[in-house]
Amino acid sequence: MKFSLGQIAEIVKGTLEGDPSVVISEMAEIQNAGPGEITFLGNPRYAKYLSVTGAEAILVPRDFTGSYKNLIHVDNPNYAYALILARLRPGPPSPQPGIRPSAVIAESASLGRDVYIGPNVVIDEKVSIGDGVVLHANSYIGYDSHIGFGSVIFPNVTVYHGVRIGKNVRIHAGAVIGSDGFGFVRTEAGISKIPQAGGVLIEDDVEIGANCAIDRGTLGDTVIRKGTKIDNLVQIAHNVKIGQYCFLAGQSGIAGSATLEDFVTVAGQVGIAGHLTIGKGVIIAAQSGVSKDIAAGSTVLGSPAQDMSKASRELAHIRSIPDIKQRLKELEKRTRESYQATHGIKKAKND
Amino acid sequence: MKFSLGQIAEIVKGTLEGDPSVVISEMAEIQNAGPGEITFLGNPRYAKYLSVTGAEAILVPRDFTGSYKNLIHVDNPNYAYALILARLRPGPPSPQPGIRPSAVIAESASLGRDVYIGPNVVIDEKVSIGDGVVLHANSYIGYDSHIGFGSVIFPNVTVYHGVRIGKNVRIHAGAVIGSDGFGFVRTEAGISKIPQAGGVLIEDDVEIGANCAIDRGTLGDTVIRKGTKIDNLVQIAHNVKIGQYCFLAGQSGIAGSATLEDFVTVAGQVGIAGHLTIGKGVIIAAQSGVSKDIAAGSTVLGSPAQDMSKASRELAHIRSIPDIKQRLKELEKRTRESYQATHGIKKAKND
Amino acid sequence: MKFSLGQIAEIVKGTLEGDPSVVISEMAEIQNAGPGEITFLGNPRYAKYLSVTGAEAILVPRDFTGSYKNLIHVDNPNYAYALILARLRPGPPSPQPGIRPSAVIAESASLGRDVYIGPNVVIDEKVSIGDGVVLHANSYIGYDSHIGFGSVIFPNVTVYHGVRIGKNVRIHAGAVIGSDGFGFVRTEAGISKIPQAGGVLIEDDVEIGANCAIDRGTLGDTVIRKGTKIDNLVQIAHNVKIGQYCFLAGQSGIAGSATLEDFVTVAGQVGIAGHLTIGKGVIIAAQSGVSKDIAAGSTVLGSPAQDMSKASRELAHIRSIPDIKQRLKELEKRTRESYQATHGIKKAKND
Repeated sequence: MKFSLGQIAEIVKGTLEGDPSVVISEMAEIQNAGPGEITFLGNPRYAKYLSVTGAEAILVPRDFTGSYKNLIHVDNPNYAYALILARLRPGPPSPQPGIRPSAVIAESASLGRDVYIGPNVVIDEKVSIGDGVVLHANSYIGYDSHIGFGSVIFPNVTVYHGVRIGKNVRIHAGAVIGSDGFGFVRTEAGISKIPQAGGVLIEDDVEIGANCAIDRGTLGDTVIRKGTKIDNLVQIAHNVKIGQYCFLAGQSGIAGSATLEDFVTVAGQVGIAGHLTIGKGVIIAAQSGVSKDIAAGSTVLGSPAQDMSKASRELAHIRSIPDIKQRLKELEKRTRESYQATHGIKKAKND
Repeated sequence: MKFSLGQIAEIVKGTLEGDPSVVISEMAEIQNAGPGEITFLGNPRYAKYLSVTGAEAILVPRDFTGSYKNLIHVDNPNYAYALILARLRPGPPSPQPGIRPSAVIAESASLGRDVYIGPNVVIDEKVSIGDGVVLHANSYIGYDSHIGFGSVIFPNVTVYHGVRIGKNVRIHAGAVIGSDGFGFVRTEAGISKIPQAGGVLIEDDVEIGANCAIDRGTLGDTVIRKGTKIDNLVQIAHNVKIGQYCFLAGQSGIAGSATLEDFVTVAGQVGIAGHLTIGKGVIIAAQSGVSKDIAAGSTVLGSPAQDMSKASRELAHIRSIPDIKQRLKELEKRTRESYQATHGIKKAKND
Repeated sequence: MKFSLGQIAEIVKGTLEGDPSVVISEMAEIQNAGPGEITFLGNPRYAKYLSVTGAEAILVPRDFTGSYKNLIHVDNPNYAYALILARLRPGPPSPQPGIRPSAVIAESASLGRDVYIGPNVVIDEKVSIGDGVVLHANSYIGYDSHIGFGSVIFPNVTVYHGVRIGKNVRIHAGAVIGSDGFGFVRTEAGISKIPQAGGVLIEDDVEIGANCAIDRGTLGDTVIRKGTKIDNLVQIAHNVKIGQYCFLAGQSGIAGSATLEDFVTVAGQVGIAGHLTIGKGVIIAAQSGVSKDIAAGSTVLGSPAQDMSKASRELAHIRSIPDIKQRLKELEKRTRESYQATHGIKKAKND
């Protein structure tokens, strides 16, 4: 696909400072962009490449004051870049609707219109698949599960029984939805398993990364609400409730029955203990370990996690220990000297 | 299924305080339970819902002193709840024994009686499958591996060659058993791979979570003893030995050749370094990083992990630094004043 | 396979101190080795087993001074052990070249000579598979991807579209290569997905562990250079560049657009934030959280990670707080006494 800069400025609702007739055929990172290519300045870290880039044009923030041969000023360069990229690179061809011959579909399953069921996909009894769903190769959909309109399941995904998936959900390869929660009781006889008899509810527009594990509930459901995005290798334990429009970055883990309210952001490798409530809009920094409820709107850090400002002060305090020791030594010296002066004792040789 | 409260009290060996003829048809979480439903009080955090629950009856500890229309006092409400739930919700129908036509089974493999081999399951040469085993769709069992009586392998599991799995083992979807350990030697020529020529031994009654990775041994076996339960996304490196009845929570990782004795509890996101020994009954708190052997019976915390009481004291010490600074400032002031008093020097303007 | 000690000494270019005619048929760990078995002393931790091992012979370092019935002195016992193990235990039979009938191969895909395509493998349009490639059961290779000479893909692996894999690469079971990066923009309308329109480039001799997740680039490629080895459950985000001959241990995670130069070693459960540069030869200790660029040659530790010596000093400082408090108390006492002495005030009762 090709677009003129004039067209691009329209698509991104931007203000062009340059030649509208220039033709753009590709997008590239600022440090690599060359003739015919547009790039963007979404992170100030990359401003250093402005002097070396060969890009034809650059998407920049409204308040950008530098100069370049062709600039398009926009509200949000990252969003503008997403819009343009979707036009310039439409991606691999979508699979044509149809059922590949090696798919194994139970008799009582129901399929919507215009679905694609890839090779070796296995669909169990009582499953219902909505219109326009794409199930890629080698995935498994368990008994009595439902997948809503337009959702895409990538290869080698496992959906256990009794899982309800909304519309336009994307589940990446290797993810597992609805495995048993980790529920056991130590008894005199050894260890007893607690039945994991709940399900999983995933609402519309959720995206789940590769090789995630999302357990089913014990009694009620594990729930992931509308628009939440989950990165790779994330663990969601039984009966967790995740609100709308949350972000969970890679390798984070949420223990059983924890609740995340809406708009929570969880960075990479964070752990959240069981039965906690994380308030609306909370931001949890990478590798934090959350062991208490977190009030809405907070930003927390550390293991155990605490308010960002507290955690920063704590780190500063730790780093001031050498200074404390120095001052302490000084005081000890003074005190000793003063004592000696008062009492007329001479300084010991080894002191 | 339906049971009277009298029947339920018998099943859980509990003491009913209420009407034995009340009929129970479902179980629910205390905050959600309503008419016809029984719930349980397994965690004191949930006592706050006693005043709002609509449950017909509640399973409570023997020493519970509150009042409610129908209570059943039991030794362990969590265990009682597991027993009742298993009766009330028998789960999805178990697959009928049989071999689905798209399964691919090598000639030299041997299958026990009453096995279920799901669609697209691949069984390699010399594999032996015990009686009553269930292999769900799209799983792979490698050369010369063995799966014991009654074990259940969920979809998309990979069992490499030379893996021995005991009776009544459950392996959740996406788990990988017997992949190569991470063994390499830097040499002049670059990096040489150390052959991973051992196997994996998984004893009876083990449960392994979704998307775990359990490597084969280099020389001897990686071993997981009877009754141990492993949560999702756990990493077990080559030649690790895990004792009986251990719990390993989600995203924990055990490096090569470490030994966990019996009854060890490893919380979420814990890391244990290679070649260590973790004594019997040790408890390791979430996100800890264990870098030394841990004596039997200890509870450890932190990264590097140390005894719980030491770690708590250390945290208290860190949090007392502001107080230390305050006291230091006070002393400095006093010392300065005392010096000035003694030497008759006036306070400097900028001091 | 069997070898005489004389043959073994030749294979490992070692110096035999013992009987060259002794026959070795197996290799074992030092604590378990018995008659007919050779073992090795690669880690001084295991020297304690020298007095109890029943091994026929031991591979030891050149400078080893202990005595045993048969010793072979070598430059690197770990490497010698790798060489011998490869001879003694050739592993399970390699699959014979051929295409298993249940494999599903698109018309426009091209296959090299002597490939093995296992049962239920799915190969999409425009894929090219090099000579001697082994694709194990139930794997999926997406549109327009390429797999180079001699590479081995284990079961249940997913390779998305547009992934280029070099020669002699090994990808373990359940790994996912080329899933979408975690790229979203919050907008007024909610959350917009940034197209993940780049690819993945994996160079020769790379090994990737079980259940890893390696995302495709947004614009350019995610890149893993020659000879790098990646353990299980590792997360590599979009546009990460990993140099040659790096090691990434289990459950480590590299956030988007980070660069690792050559010969970097990343221990288990490490997290590296986005857009950072980790210099050549850097070593990052287990569970570290890297939040800044790291200069070549450094060894770092902690979360936030800092130079190993700084981190150790910091830990020592923290552990000296009780001593600081003791000294502070002492000073306070002295100061109080001195004040009282000077001012003639009696010690208060409650003091």
